[in-house]
Amino acid sequence: MTDENTQTPDRRAIGVFDSGVGGLTVLHECLVNLPHEDFIYLGDTGNFPYGPKSLAEVRRLAFAAAARLASEDVKLIVVACNSAAAAALPQLQSSFATPIVGVVMPGARAAVQATRERRVGLLATEATVRSNAYQNALHTLDAGLEVFAIAAPRLAPLIQGGDVFSEEIEGAAREAVAPLKAAGVDTVILGCTHYPLISPMLRRLLGPHVSLINSAEETAREVAEILARKEIDNDREREGRYRFLTTGDAEEFRDVGARFLQLPIREVEQT
Amino acid sequence: MTDENTQTPDRRAIGVFDSGVGGLTVLHECLVNLPHEDFIYLGDTGNFPYGPKSLAEVRRLAFAAAARLASEDVKLIVVACNSAAAAALPQLQSSFATPIVGVVMPGARAAVQATRERRVGLLATEATVRSNAYQNALHTLDAGLEVFAIAAPRLAPLIQGGDVFSEEIEGAAREAVAPLKAAGVDTVILGCTHYPLISPMLRRLLGPHVSLINSAEETAREVAEILARKEIDNDREREGRYRFLTTGDAEEFRDVGARFLQLPIREVEQT
Repeated sequence: MTDENTQTPDRRAIGVFDSGVGGLTVLHECLVNLPHEDFIYLGDTGNFPYGPKSLAEVRRLAFAAAARLASEDVKLIVVACNSAAAAALPQLQSSFATPIVGVVMPGARAAVQATRERRVGLLATEATVRSNAYQNALHTLDAGLEVFAIAAPRLAPLIQGGDVFSEEIEGAAREAVAPLKAAGVDTVILGCTHYPLISPMLRRLLGPHVSLINSAEETAREVAEILARKEIDNDREREGRYRFLTTGDAEEFRDVGARFLQLPIREVEQT
Repeated sequence: MTDENTQTPDRRAIGVFDSGVGGLTVLHECLVNLPHEDFIYLGDTGNFPYGPKSLAEVRRLAFAAAARLASEDVKLIVVACNSAAAAALPQLQSSFATPIVGVVMPGARAAVQATRERRVGLLATEATVRSNAYQNALHTLDAGLEVFAIAAPRLAPLIQGGDVFSEEIEGAAREAVAPLKAAGVDTVILGCTHYPLISPMLRRLLGPHVSLINSAEETAREVAEILARKEIDNDREREGRYRFLTTGDAEEFRDVGARFLQLPIREVEQT
C-alpha cells in the first residue's frame, strides 16, 4: 500500500466564489483537473458587478461570500474574482481559518516562469489594472520584470453578452492586443475570468510565440497542489459532484453560466 | 540574416475539406497555430453526411473536393474528415501532385507517443470504427499496442444539434467512455472532428491520468511541420486570411460553423 492509499480522504467540498459567472471558467478548470473533488460555487450575481463598487463595499461582499461558503464546511475557498481578490484577499486570509486562494498570484507566478525576455503583458478590466494587484504580484516575484498592463473595458461586457465569435469582439480584441504587440511582450496574462472564452482569438492575434497565461488554469493547478501538500484531497476513485448557489436569479444563472462552465449546470439554489 | 529570413515566402493558401462543419475544429487549430497562413475551407455540406454512403461514393466526393481546392492553387490539402480520409487518402495522395494530409495518422502517432501502458482507446463514429483506419494506423506504428475502439453513434449528432453542455450529451459521453475506463486505457483518441467541442466533459469523465488525443490539434501540428520541412511557409510577420466554400446553404454553414470554428466566419461562398 502506498501513502496515498492509507491517507484518509477529506470528503469536504471546495468553495469557489465570484461576483457573477466569470469565475465559472475557474471552476471549469477545477472540475476538469480534479474530477474526484466536490465543489460549491457561489455566484454573487445579486451584487454583480463588483468592479464599479468602492473598495470597502467589495471587501464587505467578499467577506459575506466567504462566510457563506465557510458555513458549508468547505476545506478550501477560491476567490475566483479579480476585483474581490484585489480588494480583500489578505484580509480574508487573516480572518478565516480555511485556506483561501485568489486568482492573481497563480497567474502572476506562471507568467514569471514563462517569460523569456522578462516582458509581460496583462490584459484585464479597468478596475483590475487600476488595483495594481497583478503588477504588484509580478514585481514581488521578479523585481526586474517589465509589465505592460492594458485595460480592455469592452471585452468582458461583449463576452458576457454572448456573441463571442463576432467581428465586433475580434475588433475589440485586436485593439486591446495592439499595444502589447508593439511592446514586444513574450507572455500575456488573461487577467479577467471572462477572457478564456476568447483565448483562441487572442492566441491567433498574439501569434504562437507569445505564451498566453490562463489564470483560471493556473488557479486550478494551485488548488491541486494545496490539496496534495495539505493532504486534504478526496478519494481519487470517486466522481465528484458540483452545485451552485446564487444571490440573484437561478434561471438566469443557469442560462448564462453553461457557456462559461462548458459542462452541464444542474442544481442552482438561491441564497 | 537567418535562413528563415532569406527563404522566399510561399503565399499560396492551404486547403482544408470536410463533408460538413466538423472539420472546422481542424481549421480552428490551424488558424490558432499558424496565424500567418491563408486558408480555404471547403465544406461539402451539399453531400453531408459521408458516413452512410458507399466507399466508392465517398471516394468520388473526396476527389471532387480535392480537385476543387487544387483549382485554387493551394500548397497543401488537409482531409479534415475521418470518413473521407479512411476511404480515399492513399488514392488522393497517388493522384494529386499537392501534398495531402489526413486526420487519422497524426492522431494515431500522438497516441503511440503518449501511451505508457500501450493500451489506447478510440472514440469515433460507427463508420470510422468499422473502417479500421485508426486501428491500422496504430498497429503500423506499434504492432504491440492494444486498441479498444468504441463507436459512439449518438455523440456527433447531439454535438451538431447544438446543446453541448446538456445532461443528455453527458449521459451519452458517460456511456461511450465506460468501456474505455473498464479496459484501463491510459490514452484516448478523439477520432471524430466533432468531439473537441465536448473535450472538457470527456477529460472530466476519463480523469486527469488519461491522455486525451485531439486529432485536430495533432493534424495542425503535422501541417506546421510539413510547411517547415518543405520550406513552403508564408511570411511569419503577416496576418493570414481565411475563407469558406460550401456546396450547401451559405447562411446555414455560417450559423452552425461558428461554434466549431470558435472564430468569426466572414465570407462564405457557394460552390
